[in-house]
Amino acid sequence: MNSADLARLSVNQETVRQLSLPELAREAALLGVGGVGLWRDPVRAYGPAKAAGLMRDHGLTVTSLCRGGFFTAKDRAARTRALDDNRAALDEAAALGTGTLVLVSGGLADGERDLAAARERVAEALAELAPYAHERGVRLALEPLHPMYASDRCVVSTLGQALDLAERFPAERVGVVVDTYHLWWDERVPEQIARAGAGDRIAAFQLADWITPLPEGVLLGRGQLGDGSVDLRGFRERVEAAGYRGAVEVEIFSPALWARDGAEVLRETAERYVRHVL
Amino acid sequence: MNSADLARLSVNQETVRQLSLPELAREAALLGVGGVGLWRDPVRAYGPAKAAGLMRDHGLTVTSLCRGGFFTAKDRAARTRALDDNRAALDEAAALGTGTLVLVSGGLADGERDLAAARERVAEALAELAPYAHERGVRLALEPLHPMYASDRCVVSTLGQALDLAERFPAERVGVVVDTYHLWWDERVPEQIARAGAGDRIAAFQLADWITPLPEGVLLGRGQLGDGSVDLRGFRERVEAAGYRGAVEVEIFSPALWARDGAEVLRETAERYVRHVL
Repeated sequence: MNSADLARLSVNQETVRQLSLPELAREAALLGVGGVGLWRDPVRAYGPAKAAGLMRDHGLTVTSLCRGGFFTAKDRAARTRALDDNRAALDEAAALGTGTLVLVSGGLADGERDLAAARERVAEALAELAPYAHERGVRLALEPLHPMYASDRCVVSTLGQALDLAERFPAERVGVVVDTYHLWWDERVPEQIARAGAGDRIAAFQLADWITPLPEGVLLGRGQLGDGSVDLRGFRERVEAAGYRGAVEVEIFSPALWARDGAEVLRETAERYVRHVL
Repeated sequence: MNSADLARLSVNQETVRQLSLPELAREAALLGVGGVGLWRDPVRAYGPAKAAGLMRDHGLTVTSLCRGGFFTAKDRAARTRALDDNRAALDEAAALGTGTLVLVSGGLADGERDLAAARERVAEALAELAPYAHERGVRLALEPLHPMYASDRCVVSTLGQALDLAERFPAERVGVVVDTYHLWWDERVPEQIARAGAGDRIAAFQLADWITPLPEGVLLGRGQLGDGSVDLRGFRERVEAAGYRGAVEVEIFSPALWARDGAEVLRETAERYVRHVL
């Protein structure tokens, strides 16, 4: 592998969650990977400013912080807590030096059967948070999740819906995440990627492959690049044709990968990226 | 419960798979349910003509036979086998006296990453089978399945896609299935139901509720009516506003329901139908 090939590759730390932040920084830098995507819990445990310094010292860009969101509570107290927590996430993102906070919107409220109403509550939360995010130099990155998560994790299921919400706000304040795992099945994705690119809305581009059978709970069944059904190269070509020049972030939740040596998984991921994405 | 309320209710036998065909016929007739949806394996074991007589003797309409499909093999031999099997399913449907064969299209071929190409193979199979079906008085009912099945069970994921395929053929030969479990998340469903109704394409209307967590393999996690996130009444009102006057068929795959007394589950299903659907 030529490390020039890996300059745009970012590895989300959940892909190799067996590595500590210092291990991740060292191994990623050794390979020549350009960036990392980080998660709030390990960043808070390590300290956001210290984590920022660690990545900077290893020449790594922090391409995203995961995640804020869970905006869809109906009662006032829960809603206030969610907004406070998202402001904290924005502070952490700013301290970390990343311009992108990934948002998973949240599911239906207890007993609710109205997805459209829940999506409106997401819009209200974005309106509350967008100025705060902008002051900190962080963009809200709304992520559509696969429709299998619509009831309990994310009422925003398609790129089109995410753009419908994001476009109510200035592009520099609210963007969208294009994640192959969530969107691969949708025949409208090519046109929606073009729309997202034309409006400068693509805040992050994330990759995982789709494999079956899905595990119980369907959260931890993502496949290593090349192991599944997704035309990953086609996705990359489309986001680039739409003008996206940012990081290509691999985010795989897989107990099979977590059980292996983290440095080896990182190497394999880089190899798969060169073979199946570039 | 007033049995007039249940005249349009059909119970798919998989909902109460613990009941034999004679038990199903007897209990459904006792309740005043109007119809049943049947599956090929138990029907073949019992004999299609005998099963037809059994249901007729109990005043029950056979609203659908499940299922044909699995059209997406690439190699010639597998494709021929699939078509032969679908012709056999059409013969069975005709012997059973139902006008509706439900089709689950099939997933991607091994190593394939092209959903559009796989959908074209579905269209080719429909073209082969439509005349044969028509001669037997059976309509092919293409069922869009939830996108979580796109790779391994059904490359047709939305009602819009199912209609795009069905509309290549006369309406009396190829229709679609509107199943709440598969379609509830899709904000475009209202307009697509209207489209389906306007073209007289709604061949079957099936109900199950969406509950989480999904089980491993995501096949057997459907919820009893009223236990989940789906606006079931809203769906019924929409298909009726679109002109549909056929059966309302409850099809729930749930080990929790199968573990209970079948007659009790049937009664509960009828009660839930009255409370959450009518």
